[in-house]
Amino acid sequence: MADGILPKWDEPAIRVLMMPRDTNAHGTIFGGVILSYIDQAGAIEARRQGCQLMVTVSMDKVVFHAPVLVGDLVSFWTETMRIGNTSITTKVVVEAIRVGRSSERVVVTEANVVYVNLGQDGKPTPIIRASSELSASSPAAL
Amino acid sequence: MADGILPKWDEPAIRVLMMPRDTNAHGTIFGGVILSYIDQAGAIEARRQGCQLMVTVSMDKVVFHAPVLVGDLVSFWTETMRIGNTSITTKVVVEAIRVGRSSERVVVTEANVVYVNLGQDGKPTPIIRASSELSASSPAAL
Amino acid sequence: MADGILPKWDEPAIRVLMMPRDTNAHGTIFGGVILSYIDQAGAIEARRQGCQLMVTVSMDKVVFHAPVLVGDLVSFWTETMRIGNTSITTKVVVEAIRVGRSSERVVVTEANVVYVNLGQDGKPTPIIRASSELSASSPAAL
Amino acid sequence: MADGILPKWDEPAIRVLMMPRDTNAHGTIFGGVILSYIDQAGAIEARRQGCQLMVTVSMDKVVFHAPVLVGDLVSFWTETMRIGNTSITTKVVVEAIRVGRSSERVVVTEANVVYVNLGQDGKPTPIIRASSELSASSPAAL
Amino acid sequence: MADGILPKWDEPAIRVLMMPRDTNAHGTIFGGVILSYIDQAGAIEARRQGCQLMVTVSMDKVVFHAPVLVGDLVSFWTETMRIGNTSITTKVVVEAIRVGRSSERVVVTEANVVYVNLGQDGKPTPIIRASSELSASSPAAL
Amino acid sequence: MADGILPKWDEPAIRVLMMPRDTNAHGTIFGGVILSYIDQAGAIEARRQGCQLMVTVSMDKVVFHAPVLVGDLVSFWTETMRIGNTSITTKVVVEAIRVGRSSERVVVTEANVVYVNLGQDGKPTPIIRASSELSASSPAAL
Repeated sequence: MADGILPKWDEPAIRVLMMPRDTNAHGTIFGGVILSYIDQAGAIEARRQGCQLMVTVSMDKVVFHAPVLVGDLVSFWTETMRIGNTSITTKVVVEAIRVGRSSERVVVTEANVVYVNLGQDGKPTPIIRASSELSASSPAAL
Repeated sequence: MADGILPKWDEPAIRVLMMPRDTNAHGTIFGGVILSYIDQAGAIEARRQGCQLMVTVSMDKVVFHAPVLVGDLVSFWTETMRIGNTSITTKVVVEAIRVGRSSERVVVTEANVVYVNLGQDGKPTPIIRASSELSASSPAAL
Repeated sequence: MADGILPKWDEPAIRVLMMPRDTNAHGTIFGGVILSYIDQAGAIEARRQGCQLMVTVSMDKVVFHAPVLVGDLVSFWTETMRIGNTSITTKVVVEAIRVGRSSERVVVTEANVVYVNLGQDGKPTPIIRASSELSASSPAAL
Repeated sequence: MADGILPKWDEPAIRVLMMPRDTNAHGTIFGGVILSYIDQAGAIEARRQGCQLMVTVSMDKVVFHAPVLVGDLVSFWTETMRIGNTSITTKVVVEAIRVGRSSERVVVTEANVVYVNLGQDGKPTPIIRASSELSASSPAAL
Repeated sequence: MADGILPKWDEPAIRVLMMPRDTNAHGTIFGGVILSYIDQAGAIEARRQGCQLMVTVSMDKVVFHAPVLVGDLVSFWTETMRIGNTSITTKVVVEAIRVGRSSERVVVTEANVVYVNLGQDGKPTPIIRASSELSASSPAAL
Repeated sequence: MADGILPKWDEPAIRVLMMPRDTNAHGTIFGGVILSYIDQAGAIEARRQGCQLMVTVSMDKVVFHAPVLVGDLVSFWTETMRIGNTSITTKVVVEAIRVGRSSERVVVTEANVVYVNLGQDGKPTPIIRASSELSASSPAAL
């Protein structure tokens, strides 16, 4: 791989079923619930690429395309856009499988999340890349 | 497919990251958290096979092989063992990817869960099978 | 007592009021919530019999007889079936008192749960029985 | 019974196991968790005495005697102090059974809670007493 | 300031938006949720006045004036009534801004909460007052 | 006011105390918790400016400057950057008051959040501005 980035994982980083306790006052799923899982999903992607102890430093281009509903099965698909010396930029695509709608998968949200890799001293430390020989179905250092 | 059961899904039904709020008094993940996701995962499998409104009727052979830890990425893999007229028997295998252990996947829990398909009247109603032509990567009526 | 098992406790191990945050997509109480309390209730029974540090090793014969509703007062009654050298088998019977239905108590779920007693080293260690002279209303080593 | 108040129930209204997610910044159980269960326990007592739809109107003499710890089994014992035309005054005594301390039961908190009984119109409505012939082990209209 | 009590803070100690997961069986906000925030708000006031490690010792005159609804923005305003050698009495006034009702602020609950200041040894220790020169908009030692 | 935007509110939209249940695997506050409150805070600002039923459409420039710790009192300050016909852009600044550090307020996170105002039909509908005569201390239509 040119720049040592593991290819897109062909499994979701996170997948959850939406429950009534996740709703907002309008009865749809509260955006904060989705954002929480996005933060976790990006971190899982960063771990897969070789990060050990990460902190989220920024999120960008978070776009909510469609509401998420109680009963939806929601998947968080991840991909690494760029790995710097101590930081990593991930992209998270959120997809809902609607309850009772055969095979329909809807992209509901997208976001870019950047993490910094920390050492034991809590300071930014270089990312040791996961082996580039691993295929998409091997989560490597996750 | 012999009996119209969709083959094992090659994606996890549920995948979650374990957090400190999920721990028991010993600092490992509370078994009730795992059991909750098992119940959801089996229901997702039942939905994939054609069930619409399900209730859990029983669980059996729930075996906890190893503890789950904070930071583990935990996947719930599902498979259908048997589809009766109105009931469906699913198997859920729970696998943890340990934090910081390259590529290591550990089966931590297993369970069989049986659901009954209900009609609009809340009474058991025959399961309409998802098309047997669908492949493992098509979640069908999920 | 023949085999040193304390008789059935005449108080519930757990008793809780069901709230809207405990519901599933159908508006009844999510099975995972009930399973979580069953796991705790069996562990409380094991503690009462002399266990100190327990891990759940298996659950069996979990049967859901009737749905649980928001507002139900739900009790988890426990009993010990068998005490081995390092393991203990408990039975948990879950009973709902329906809101606004005078005196009606409905058995909604049952389960058998097995725990192993661990020592400080995290390895199975013999269970030191609670005194067999204690009556059902004395929780002993709980 | 002189004034138609059912005697003290010889079972706890609520009983729960304290978990790490219930802690405050000091590592002991957050007082708000205890207060939440007190509010529920008093309402269960009011329901037992014949109330149907209650709202909490006041709490008084809430005294925290001792901290509650992770792993404690906490019981909420209730008693009715007074039943007026549309309101009821309950007393809740909170008792902890400490983990690993044989038979020790510690009163950790106490409170008086007053509820008003509401009719379908949401306005205060007279309480229809549960039969005074019921014994303490019959929860009556609960 | 006469007795070294910092004047009432002109900012709320706590302010939260009420969500569906906070409801009781009647669909209004569960009183226990409000009580939990009252306990936190009083502790924040105590911290502002110089306490370091506090435990709640009592609550009194908790009065629920009106229900709180999903979507309400709820503020917990605090004031110190009295500072003793090792204890502090705070007053918490809970105010709801109703969703979609222009400028309307309703006092929904009130309570007095007493805390004791603890030293590193877990024993009551004298409160070191926050500087009396600070204005209401300076939270001092908070 | 030039463009009918109400000035910055001199009270926080949200203010909460961070608890152990809000932590991630590293022991600091989970970013998802902060993101959830940012989403609510921006919506409260939008409501204050005249929106009625909002959906979050995007977030941008979310920057995490410093970790948030258990015991921190965290405030979400809001401001409106732009009001379009049916959409509104808010800025949320998150500030932590560290436990036990006198008067120290640290900006920990910032974000821009855009909402669309919906009508009863669930379609974008023009925002009816809150009166521009209101001062910063009047929350107007909140």
